[in-house]
Amino acid sequence: MADAVRSTIRLEPMSVPKASDVLATELRERILSGEFAEGTPLPPERELVTQTRMSRTTVREALRILEVQGLIRIRAGRAGGAFVQQPDEESVASSVEMLIRGRRLRLASVHQTREAIEPTCARLAALQRSDADLRAIEAANDAVSNSDDLESFLRANVDWHVAVAAAGRNEILTGMMMALSRAIYTATKTDGFVNDEVRSIAVRAHRSVTRAIRERDPDAAERRMARHVHSYATAALEVEDRTTVTLSEGE
Amino acid sequence: MADAVRSTIRLEPMSVPKASDVLATELRERILSGEFAEGTPLPPERELVTQTRMSRTTVREALRILEVQGLIRIRAGRAGGAFVQQPDEESVASSVEMLIRGRRLRLASVHQTREAIEPTCARLAALQRSDADLRAIEAANDAVSNSDDLESFLRANVDWHVAVAAAGRNEILTGMMMALSRAIYTATKTDGFVNDEVRSIAVRAHRSVTRAIRERDPDAAERRMARHVHSYATAALEVEDRTTVTLSEGE
Repeated sequence: MADAVRSTIRLEPMSVPKASDVLATELRERILSGEFAEGTPLPPERELVTQTRMSRTTVREALRILEVQGLIRIRAGRAGGAFVQQPDEESVASSVEMLIRGRRLRLASVHQTREAIEPTCARLAALQRSDADLRAIEAANDAVSNSDDLESFLRANVDWHVAVAAAGRNEILTGMMMALSRAIYTATKTDGFVNDEVRSIAVRAHRSVTRAIRERDPDAAERRMARHVHSYATAALEVEDRTTVTLSEGE
Repeated sequence: MADAVRSTIRLEPMSVPKASDVLATELRERILSGEFAEGTPLPPERELVTQTRMSRTTVREALRILEVQGLIRIRAGRAGGAFVQQPDEESVASSVEMLIRGRRLRLASVHQTREAIEPTCARLAALQRSDADLRAIEAANDAVSNSDDLESFLRANVDWHVAVAAAGRNEILTGMMMALSRAIYTATKTDGFVNDEVRSIAVRAHRSVTRAIRERDPDAAERRMARHVHSYATAALEVEDRTTVTLSEGE
């Protein structure tokens, strides 16, 4: 009987977490929970080695992981070191960008997502905007109408859309808009869709959305933005029905 | 004159990119551009050291960075090594989750974002769903109505919302929904908002959205989902006006 029991003991293949993951996870949890506040310096590398009894390579790897995730920033120099940083819109934007590039998402997916979120961004901007937000939106729109080449038009266009999202004070939507705008910026830069007519229509549409935001009229802002994004998307997709989006690093 | 010219030469502080960043960026670009296809094995670590003339620590660090970004996966064992992986919805979901947790975003921001994207998800599901998608949506809904405790109700609820998003075939929206659902799952699990009435209302709303998706009626799917998400959000926010969302690892 004892033999039979012994023979049924069988171990499954096991996976052992990497030391640097264990350390990175511990630090990440304490950063995200707020226990380590924004700007707090982490102990120097050699001190972390002593405290954790992990190797220097492990400690360094864990810090690199957190740096890539945007949870610490490394400053060089005498007062340098690793400082706690809370994630921001940029980390959402870059993950969405990688998804769009790596999976070669069709431009249609990007436009669909914009059509879903931008009307809400405009509504929130009308409800939440400060005077400074309004100035930023208007300045971006002036830059759109004053742009004298495609490149500066597209850049100002992105700035206007992101400024509207930022005025709505919803960090998730703002991060999304940053990523989507960049994807559309790059796609339209190369597909020859933007001409003088498209530009002047965009400027007029932006003005009417901006007016609703200035007058704090959420319904008008939402409706006008929906119409603008929809017609822009429809026109862009007619030009290139199955364009895949490519983004280059640093755009 | 020569002296004067010499004395005006002044160098600014310069930052030198880290070796592991240089290597990670190079590999990342070639993965995202599609040059290195999904599933392709990277050369073994020692081979990368030889090819790049970088140190073993640098190579290892670069691979860890790419692993954290979801661009390679490491398999252990004899046929193991690093394999190219394209980013997926999960990487978007985890960056949104970190933003929500780290910045302690108000539950209102999460609900606003859901109200923006879920009606579009339902519309796309009605247009794009396969029979298998429909079965997954219906199975999730059956699990919602059969759930006999809060925990299983909430989990089935998340599954239903994510299944609808997935049926719409837009990876950006699906990644967003995964993150938002998990945030709401954790928030509602602790705030005592869900009671029997809330549950039965949710089940009925899901049924009517599911019916529109089954019948491929995008307008009805969009309208019903908008109503459902809006009333759920309103009710949840009445209970806890400024709830901050906390997520624990692994939820």
